[in-house]
Amino acid sequence: MPQAEFSIIEKYFAGIGSSQWPPELPSGDDAAILEIPEGKQAVMSVDTLIAGVHFPLETSPADIAHKSLAVNLSDLAAMGASPAWFLLSLTIPDTNESWLDSFSASLRKIAEQYRIELVGGDTCHGPLSITIQVTGLVDKDKYITRSSANPGDLILVSGQIGNAALGLAHLQNRIQLEEKLIVPCLEAVNRPTPRLCLTDFLRNFANAAIDLSDGLVGDLKHILDKSKVGASISQDALPVNEWIVDNDAYEYALSGGDDYELCLTISPGYKDQIMLWNQKNPDCQLHLIGQITESGFYLHTENETIDLSNTKGYQHFGK
Amino acid sequence: MPQAEFSIIEKYFAGIGSSQWPPELPSGDDAAILEIPEGKQAVMSVDTLIAGVHFPLETSPADIAHKSLAVNLSDLAAMGASPAWFLLSLTIPDTNESWLDSFSASLRKIAEQYRIELVGGDTCHGPLSITIQVTGLVDKDKYITRSSANPGDLILVSGQIGNAALGLAHLQNRIQLEEKLIVPCLEAVNRPTPRLCLTDFLRNFANAAIDLSDGLVGDLKHILDKSKVGASISQDALPVNEWIVDNDAYEYALSGGDDYELCLTISPGYKDQIMLWNQKNPDCQLHLIGQITESGFYLHTENETIDLSNTKGYQHFGK
Repeated sequence: MPQAEFSIIEKYFAGIGSSQWPPELPSGDDAAILEIPEGKQAVMSVDTLIAGVHFPLETSPADIAHKSLAVNLSDLAAMGASPAWFLLSLTIPDTNESWLDSFSASLRKIAEQYRIELVGGDTCHGPLSITIQVTGLVDKDKYITRSSANPGDLILVSGQIGNAALGLAHLQNRIQLEEKLIVPCLEAVNRPTPRLCLTDFLRNFANAAIDLSDGLVGDLKHILDKSKVGASISQDALPVNEWIVDNDAYEYALSGGDDYELCLTISPGYKDQIMLWNQKNPDCQLHLIGQITESGFYLHTENETIDLSNTKGYQHFGK
Repeated sequence: MPQAEFSIIEKYFAGIGSSQWPPELPSGDDAAILEIPEGKQAVMSVDTLIAGVHFPLETSPADIAHKSLAVNLSDLAAMGASPAWFLLSLTIPDTNESWLDSFSASLRKIAEQYRIELVGGDTCHGPLSITIQVTGLVDKDKYITRSSANPGDLILVSGQIGNAALGLAHLQNRIQLEEKLIVPCLEAVNRPTPRLCLTDFLRNFANAAIDLSDGLVGDLKHILDKSKVGASISQDALPVNEWIVDNDAYEYALSGGDDYELCLTISPGYKDQIMLWNQKNPDCQLHLIGQITESGFYLHTENETIDLSNTKGYQHFGK
């Protein structure tokens, strides 16, 4: 790496985060060396965030750093994996020290919070984009996929959905949110919470899971396709804020995307576990929104049943 | 992922490459699941290539694909690791089918050649850039680092250095190469060879190694800094083509960068192994260019000794 790049890494990115499984050899060589404990499997994912595409150009460096790691941690959460290490490839237009200060401080904070350690990466100059590759660990064969949902399974969604899409619409002056909704909706756009709080619940009860990056309908459809099953969901049961209800604007929740909540399916026999979980975890609530069926994909509203199984139905809610 | 992204991945990037260690669960979920065999450690690196920064804008998609994976494989080579899996994050300005055809066909070819398997990734729209994260495997604690060079070690360089910088200068009309040098120099820019041919030699004999991405002086300096040693190298011994000799233009070899040859150090007791290796591996030659010392960093030319140990000396050859 060029000297300039080396200095940036040394100055801003040394010692970010800490892992339950410290690297054998962290960054500073051509590659990092990681030891995977016996009985564990590695879970790997990569996501790129591009300025103007995945976040508005005016987003603060602290929010960009948070979101870049959060969306990757969300993939680990969906697989039931515990965060271990990450690599960062950072492309910046220029070496702006205050930007790098804020970016790296925020990255450090979220990395510490979720116990993941930065073990390598590179920086270069170009249009602003951030690629993070995460590795998590799971007990052998205990990972959760999209392909094991069974007919009869209950479909659950965490948190509240549609907030990120509402926040973005507000930022772009397409809608006007009332004061008290602005904070949670902007928080959803800029500071999504990876639902690692659900790891134990997933490991114990989930048959299938996915994180909601592109909207409930599209993402749940991945589970249905992979598991070769159908689903029936109820609009009234969707965990949404009052603006969506008052404005009958469920499209934000159904296809808005960027929520990074989890959608999971569990056997109906575990129904009581939902209430028990919710009593103990007020910040990580689960909501029952429907059920896995043999085939088809339907949304039940107060007045009609909408077929979501073909692209047309899905594009009805398209962004 | 949005439907459009999903289709691109299915159409162009399914089943690329194959690994000695097939993934437990390849792409198509939120993350890939990889099983690391007992007694092995994972070696991970990430590199981003940006259009106009790391390759000229007019570079062919086939060359871009080759180079994107090659530079990452080069990091594995420098660590003495065997390629296993990679993740691709591809940012493209638009969905150009013939571009994607060429890019993915070339990626498939180099992935097959070096036995590495694509296990996941994402695609999005934005300024053209390619991030690849590679994972290799090494026998436990048998990896090679930059930090174990010893005074007395012989310093070796593979292949020929300076060609990539010459090729780039030719493309940019800064120099005019004679016909027979154009092909190897453009090949060096666009189709670098990751020196995985040296893995066995490294494992058996190397004390330290690094890949030459930024130029011999800068990269060797990383070994010296990390190993807390010095070096003395001879200009006449540098493996360069005749244009560099004829034009006394050794700066291309010393600080040109982008060669992706390996620089390694071995105990002097292994000197005979160099000749033995070279006899058996005509396509993967090793050249003795100098020796590790207690301290200092000197280049001996026919007429003078140049101190490379401070930034000034190094920047004398700066890009």
